[in-house]
Amino acid sequence: MKHFESLEGFGLIRNLVQDAGTRIVLLVLDGVGGIPDPLTGQTALEAAKKPNIDSLVRASVCGRGVPVLPGITPGSGPGHLALFGYDPLRYSMGRGVLEAMGVGMELAKGDVAARANFCTIGDKGVVTDRRAGRIPDEKSAELCRILSEKVRTIDGVKVFIRPGKSHRFVALFRGPGLSDRLTDADPQKEGKKVPPVRPLDRKAGKSAKLANAFMDKARKALQGLKPANGVLLRGFSMRPDIPSFGEVYGLNAAAIASYPMYKGLARLVGMEVIEGANSMGDEISILEKNFKRFTFFYIHIKATDTAGEDGNLEKKVKAIEEVDSLLPRITALSPDVLAITGDHSTPTPLKSHSWHPVPVLIYSKVCGADGIEAFTERECNRGSLGIFPMKHLMPLLLANAGRLSKYGA
Amino acid sequence: MKHFESLEGFGLIRNLVQDAGTRIVLLVLDGVGGIPDPLTGQTALEAAKKPNIDSLVRASVCGRGVPVLPGITPGSGPGHLALFGYDPLRYSMGRGVLEAMGVGMELAKGDVAARANFCTIGDKGVVTDRRAGRIPDEKSAELCRILSEKVRTIDGVKVFIRPGKSHRFVALFRGPGLSDRLTDADPQKEGKKVPPVRPLDRKAGKSAKLANAFMDKARKALQGLKPANGVLLRGFSMRPDIPSFGEVYGLNAAAIASYPMYKGLARLVGMEVIEGANSMGDEISILEKNFKRFTFFYIHIKATDTAGEDGNLEKKVKAIEEVDSLLPRITALSPDVLAITGDHSTPTPLKSHSWHPVPVLIYSKVCGADGIEAFTERECNRGSLGIFPMKHLMPLLLANAGRLSKYGA
Repeated sequence: MKHFESLEGFGLIRNLVQDAGTRIVLLVLDGVGGIPDPLTGQTALEAAKKPNIDSLVRASVCGRGVPVLPGITPGSGPGHLALFGYDPLRYSMGRGVLEAMGVGMELAKGDVAARANFCTIGDKGVVTDRRAGRIPDEKSAELCRILSEKVRTIDGVKVFIRPGKSHRFVALFRGPGLSDRLTDADPQKEGKKVPPVRPLDRKAGKSAKLANAFMDKARKALQGLKPANGVLLRGFSMRPDIPSFGEVYGLNAAAIASYPMYKGLARLVGMEVIEGANSMGDEISILEKNFKRFTFFYIHIKATDTAGEDGNLEKKVKAIEEVDSLLPRITALSPDVLAITGDHSTPTPLKSHSWHPVPVLIYSKVCGADGIEAFTERECNRGSLGIFPMKHLMPLLLANAGRLSKYGA
Repeated sequence: MKHFESLEGFGLIRNLVQDAGTRIVLLVLDGVGGIPDPLTGQTALEAAKKPNIDSLVRASVCGRGVPVLPGITPGSGPGHLALFGYDPLRYSMGRGVLEAMGVGMELAKGDVAARANFCTIGDKGVVTDRRAGRIPDEKSAELCRILSEKVRTIDGVKVFIRPGKSHRFVALFRGPGLSDRLTDADPQKEGKKVPPVRPLDRKAGKSAKLANAFMDKARKALQGLKPANGVLLRGFSMRPDIPSFGEVYGLNAAAIASYPMYKGLARLVGMEVIEGANSMGDEISILEKNFKRFTFFYIHIKATDTAGEDGNLEKKVKAIEEVDSLLPRITALSPDVLAITGDHSTPTPLKSHSWHPVPVLIYSKVCGADGIEAFTERECNRGSLGIFPMKHLMPLLLANAGRLSKYGA
């Protein structure tokens, strides 16, 4: 039976991976998928003028990837794990970890991160506002400086504080023997006291004490301040024990992204993050400069998602058109495999992430072109990849790169 | 949990199977799927003139089957297991077993088969050529005769030797209490000694001794011969404990094939192999003669794969056209269900098996025709079967044959 177990998870892929000296570029347009706009009847991909992408699609295979399961709207974490070939239901990431990555904090193994709020606590010790009146970013940054100065270590455990948006911040604890098996210190609604952090198993006792000590120290540090005189902690979590992307796939992988969250996700799976990108153009320049150094490139484009979240169809169309204008610089490098897709859909009519399957294009000389004329949601429905679990994208890219040997004789 | 277990594997199908007196023909064109030829832009299926198949497809449902998983290139073993409805990741077959079937050896339960090489061993006992200069088939056959005569039994275990291509042969051991949990006796590269076979668990001790005794006896039998004076053994394996096709599906199944490997695969799942086919025409004649005797026919056509492996588009087109010319003889028998597909794709530009999903056509009076005009890779992308795991083909055939009752009230 051991023989079969070795084929589960990444066992199958690990057994088949071979080196071929080939290069793969995975271009991720965050939130690229959409639904037709009620006014125009077109999605952003349908409305965009994108001659370069549409020329590529004619020589490509297409389909639509389901990041988690049909009907499930993924966050950026699960969406990216699926893109990188990890089952997003098996390798889940806690909210604390995602929040920490979102603000650019590096998580070492054994660190515990919590998503934190500044809150308002009334005279009787009850929470009167869980978000402290949604204080502005600058105010939050100032309070984080105060906390950082006054709470540097607790019983030898280092404490790191980093502000997020508005009332949010991240508290990260670093020291030996920590556990994330902890309940939230959050009453969930106003009018109740902050419950203490409780351990969920025996080994978490020390960490619960630590978290409660932090709550006390923070309360003292903020005493008298208005409206933020307390903190809430939730989503205690540690970085998941995740197999390394490079080791599983035999690839030397680089990540090119401008937002902290995506750099964090790439680091989590063991990619090397190349810093310095502040625009799409920068990202492609970094790709060009480093093309010989790596065998896999993950390029993250944020603008498509931002436009989707804003419900701004025109802006999303423009973002896609900008990617299209940069595509010739990528194809000029002649990657053996070039894939274009997203981590999830962000339809402008919804102004949020959604469950709609994500258009996928894979180009290689041996892909077996589907003969599709335009890279759009509806055209991709007709492709030979079908409507497929996104976690299968990586094996498809490896196969197209000649990097997977035959299974069985 | 028992309740769920009964629905896993074949539990569901077993519970739903009913007799309907209907007949199913599964016509397998080995390696039929392809990718467009770089010169003509057409696949073999697109280039072939096949009026009969294309007439049938208009009344059929279509799709593309994924034999193992997206991106995974299957060998013939996994490809056929999927066609027969077995999860190819659950029921895997060792290399020794497949090699034995490929040379037409029958494996009884408890037999252990190994894939073997004749090799050259130098003065210091190191392997100087793992393939003994790739000796010709005739030379190998002669050496196998010598081995067969000199090593008939070891400690009461019978030894069977059968030559394969060039330096390859199969060693099969038959006796009580054997195990295949053994390491390879193969240094993997030249310049090293042949490592002894080691047991991977306690029960394999006897078999390891046996294998090492065989290695010694073979070495003595070949002493002084050039260039083949030693043997390597690898891929020790036993036939998997696989549920019988006939028992699971309630079908009386016949296999019509001209190559040993495919007869072996059919026997492995318990089909009755009807011998005597040396050509496509023979195969159809056998079908005609035996049509009343069975309720399921697996017909294997090898020529499509051979042409694919040769990279010969014209030959692959001709093979498809020959099948087309024979199709009226099959439809004249009025099988209740007729399916045409392959065990994997073998694109001529790749000259090898590939991961590309395989075109599938299912005809029955109740299939719900998709209205597709030609049986090609790209047309099949649009069919109602979608891009689906090939292991689901058998339930689809049974359903079309009225052989599956309703699940649940």
